[in-house]
Parts: sequence; C-alpha cells; structure tokens
Amino acid sequence: MRASVYHGKGDIRVENVADSKIQAPTDAVVRITHACICGSDLWFYRGQEPSWQSGWRTGHEWMGIVEEVGSEVRTVKKGDRVIAPFAFSDGSCEYCEHGLQTSCIHGDFWGGKNEGGQAEAIRAPYADGTLVALPHSVEGDETLLKAILPLTDVMGTGHHAAVSAGVKSGVTAAVVGDGAVGLCGVLSAKRLGASRIILMGRHESRIAIARKFGATDVVTERGAEGIAKVVEMTGGGAECVLECVGLKESFDMAIGAARPGGRVGFVGVPHVAESINLQRMFRHNIALHGGVAPVRSYLPELLDDVISGKIDPSPVLDKTVKLDGVPEGYAAMDGRQAVKVMVLT
Amino acid sequence: MRASVYHGKGDIRVENVADSKIQAPTDAVVRITHACICGSDLWFYRGQEPSWQSGWRTGHEWMGIVEEVGSEVRTVKKGDRVIAPFAFSDGSCEYCEHGLQTSCIHGDFWGGKNEGGQAEAIRAPYADGTLVALPHSVEGDETLLKAILPLTDVMGTGHHAAVSAGVKSGVTAAVVGDGAVGLCGVLSAKRLGASRIILMGRHESRIAIARKFGATDVVTERGAEGIAKVVEMTGGGAECVLECVGLKESFDMAIGAARPGGRVGFVGVPHVAESINLQRMFRHNIALHGGVAPVRSYLPELLDDVISGKIDPSPVLDKTVKLDGVPEGYAAMDGRQAVKVMVLT
Repeated sequence: MRASVYHGKGDIRVENVADSKIQAPTDAVVRITHACICGSDLWFYRGQEPSWQSGWRTGHEWMGIVEEVGSEVRTVKKGDRVIAPFAFSDGSCEYCEHGLQTSCIHGDFWGGKNEGGQAEAIRAPYADGTLVALPHSVEGDETLLKAILPLTDVMGTGHHAAVSAGVKSGVTAAVVGDGAVGLCGVLSAKRLGASRIILMGRHESRIAIARKFGATDVVTERGAEGIAKVVEMTGGGAECVLECVGLKESFDMAIGAARPGGRVGFVGVPHVAESINLQRMFRHNIALHGGVAPVRSYLPELLDDVISGKIDPSPVLDKTVKLDGVPEGYAAMDGRQAVKVMVLT
Repeated sequence: MRASVYHGKGDIRVENVADSKIQAPTDAVVRITHACICGSDLWFYRGQEPSWQSGWRTGHEWMGIVEEVGSEVRTVKKGDRVIAPFAFSDGSCEYCEHGLQTSCIHGDFWGGKNEGGQAEAIRAPYADGTLVALPHSVEGDETLLKAILPLTDVMGTGHHAAVSAGVKSGVTAAVVGDGAVGLCGVLSAKRLGASRIILMGRHESRIAIARKFGATDVVTERGAEGIAKVVEMTGGGAECVLECVGLKESFDMAIGAARPGGRVGFVGVPHVAESINLQRMFRHNIALHGGVAPVRSYLPELLDDVISGKIDPSPVLDKTVKLDGVPEGYAAMDGRQAVKVMVLT
C-alpha cells in the first residue's frame, strides 16, 4: 500500500509500505478515505522536533471504512465508516474512564513509530476504545464528510481550548492564533455561548473564516500592543483566553490579555524556553489549563452537532490534495498558502 | 511611633516614624498588638527584590485594636480587635465582589510605600473592605490570638494553594515545601478532606509540624528522585499538588508529581527564569491555578474554624520577639532557626 513517510526536514515522500494487518485481537484495519495535514505536523516538517526519525509515518487525522476487525472488537465492524481521534486509547484504563484518553496507559499517537493516517490504510489498535462509527446516513455526502473530518483533531482541540479556558454562556473570550485550531477555538467559544469573541490574528483570509465562525472583534496587533488593545476593549482583559499557538510570544499574549481571575486554555504544543509570565499569573490569579486534547472524549457530542448542522468547521480545510499530493500539501501549509489541507485517498 | 524600616540587604531597623493618622474618611488607624515576619519578606531581606527601596516599611501580617476610624467607616469602630489580610482592598470593585480582593482596583499590599505591620500602629485604607472584626470573646486569650494570627497570610495562603489545587474529599494531595505556607497547606488539605497528604520537605522540626497538621507521608528526596517517589507511591502522581515555594525546582517537582489530569495550586511568589515544565503539563493536561491568595475572601470561614478549635495553625509560629527584636527575627528566619516569627508589639 501507499503511505506518506518522513525523510528529514522538508522531505516527505509517498511510498510503498507493507500492508496494514491485524496484529492483535483488539485491532481494526481501516481503509482511509479522508485525512488531513495538521499544523503540528509542521514542527517535524520544519526540523523542529529532534526526536523525529527518517522512515517514520506521518498523519494523525483520518477517517475511513473498516476492512477487517480482530476477534475481540465489538463496537465497529467491516464496512462501517469510522472516525479516529489523533491518539488511540484502550478505552478502559483510569484515564480513559475519566475522559483523558490522551493519557491512556496503552495509548499513543498515529504516525511516528506507529502507522500514520496519510496513507491508504491503517492498523488501529484498541479499535473499541479509539474509533467512533458514523451513521450510515453520512455516506456519499462529501460536504458533510468534509465537515466531520476536522473532528479528528482541530475542532476537538479548539473545543478543548475553549473548555480549558472556562468558556461558558456570556463570557468574553480571546483567541490567540488564527491557524485551524484558533479558528476552531472561535467556533467552539461561540458554540459554548461566549457573547464576545476577540480573535488575535492578522491574516485576512483567516480573519474572514473567524468572522464566519463567530468572532465579534479582531485584534491584528501583536505583543504588548495586542495585549493593550484587548485590555482596553474589555476593561481589564478577557475572562477566557484560548492559547492556540504554543510559542513564548503567544503565551505572553494570552496571559497578558487575560482578566484577573481568568483562565488561559492552552492547546498549542509548547515550544517555550524562557519562563512564561508567571508573575502576572501569580499577581492576578490567572490559571492555565489544557494540554493535548482528549478528542475521543469530545467526539460524540461534536459529531452530533456537525451532523445536525449546528456547527461546520469545514472552512478551515481550504486546500485538497490526493495522497500523492501530500508533499505538496505540507509545502503549502509551510508557506501559509493553505490554512489546512485535506487529503483524499 | 516605632516601626520597622528596610535599609538594604540584611539591614532592617526599628525606628521612630510619623504617627499613623486618618487621611481619608474610609481609613482606620489600628494600634498593632501582634504581627509576623513572612517567608516572602526574606526576598527583599536577601536583596532579591530589586524594586525594594531603602526607607520602605516592612510587614504585611498584623492584627490589633482600632484607635480611630474615618467618618465613612461602618463595620469597625474604636476599641474593636481587627485582623487584616496582607493586602487592603476597597470591598466594592468587580474583583472584590468576585472574592479576588488581591486584584482590587484600589488595593495594595502593606509595607513598601505603604505603612507596614511590623510597627506600633498602622493606617488601614478602605477599613470596611479590608478589616475583619473579631468577637470580643477572643480578648485576653493569647493562645487563641496566636492561632488566629496566621490567618493574616500563611494560613489563608496555604488554603488558597489547596483550593487552587482542587483539593476535596478523598483526594491525594502532595505539598511541595515545608515552610509556614507549605505547613498550612497540609493543614488546609486535611481540612478540605484529602485522604492522603504527602509532604515534600526535609527539615525534621517542620516535618513534625506537618505530621501534626495531617501529613500522612513525607518525601525527603528532592528533584527527580522526589518526583519518582511520589509517582511510585501514588501509582502515577497526586491529583492535587500544592506548590508553596516559587522556584523553578519546586515548580518542576510539583508538575512532575502531579497525576495526569491533575492540578497544581501555586502560591509561592514565583522567582523563575527558565520555562516551567510546560511539556508535561501539555502532555498530561496538568493545570496550574493559584497566585497571590485573596486572604480577605477566606478570612471569615477560616476564622470560624480557628475560634471553634477545628484548626490551629499556631505551631508555625515557633519564635516570638518584641518590636525591637524584628531585626533578630529576620535573621532567625533567614538562617532557618525559625519557621516563622511572631512580633508582639
């Protein structure tokens, strides 16, 4: 079968690899129909993940049709369309039971040493704990499938940012970052009832999506200027801030724009060497919640809302490639020609 | 009147200063009977607070008898015994109404440019928003007054650490630091129902107090060894961790000892240059809550429990000096000959 493989900085190739096969009775093998390239894939693509090794598989966002299941799999069967969160999980350990499947004691992430989602097929360990079967009604509705696809990661991650930031009805939320996660953070804040949503970002096409998703205000200034603007607009800062980037500068903006007693929800993989602004967090009791999103936990409720048409995150997918076009997709995202790339395999 | 004044690193002097006087109709003047030296006073004493200037007053923990009140003061009157949190606050702004008096728009801390508590008397701005009157029944009961005194700061701060860490009935809590705040954190975790309380500290006399306050386990190892011990003892880490120091090493210990999905409550003034362990916080959704404790908010409930005998934080006060002995008190705390010094003025 064909799959995308990492060969070093800026070098992604679609190659022939061994076919995916059942290896444990809890496995499923899934023929992938849709996948994505994630903003977080750019860390290794840009050579900023020293742990990444040549030969590793890529892609952690995918859905498809079950081809085969192991003897112990109960919740999905051959022919089902399934969606996966970006991490697999056994569904039964203490952390899975608490809805923190990303800390599953048997879990891990797609890609890397595991099989990846930018491929024709994938072996899914712990199929019962990991996969969510979609209703048959979605089949053939490519518009709906495209709206469902971001639930593999960015929509669940944006939702986690909003939940972690404590967004609820009537609050003011600020969103740092206009990437796919930040945009989904806007949509999530809107869905959870924020009455004012301030996007901190500067790219026009992304701002347009944010407005569509519910952003009421946009702050294009960065750093201290951006912070001052949000503090002024809100009379002291936003109660809830979604940090959707992961850099020192974005943490500083998030903490600086937070209201005393407020909360920052962070979901961008942190790449931070110096101390974040603990002094401000301390001085004004600003809390920091979040981390890698337990998307499996959120999938059912978000899926209901996508299928019923309440939310549609598909505008973040602004470029489509075939599997052979995956390298082109990485290059487009790296060069900011695309917010997020969908891969039709 | 006499008051303690900072003159530079290691140089505290008790001097004659202008008498405290009513300056605004919302002021009270209080004759101080009891004060403390705080572990956080050691930052400037050791020359580690560059903002501190020679001539500034010292002391932010005090109680006493009201001598005079301004024309608009309604809740306390001449002759009342009152206790103050370490910060004053107007009691009416948005933040005060939300119980975050430390972010009061008119508030500030005792000492520094304001009058200090290591003195014969003090002008208390916003007396109604700041001071809590004690029942007359406490008068003359020096044992009880000594038990009430830590509510000015360390007991409220330890309580804030426990609340911020999410301590509730049945949890396992770890406490990083065996200073007065850490010890009060142990007492607070016990009060809030933690079933297992692990003190991370190494000083025998302090460990003895922690045991008395409810610590069920003690880990004397530091750094990675201490973390490994807590993780092993708890099968993955403590749900709630109280960070009661404020250094990079103590943050690392706190985050390292926290269970996936757990919470760190931090109340030590942060003196951290490098990044705290955001990678672990991200990977396992460990939240960081806390900051400077809104002690005013906690005072009434904690006071009830001290007066009724449910809690007694007085063992943290293990040395007593007169006002003239304040410099000796600082030296004793700096040299770790005392956990915390009470000043009888």
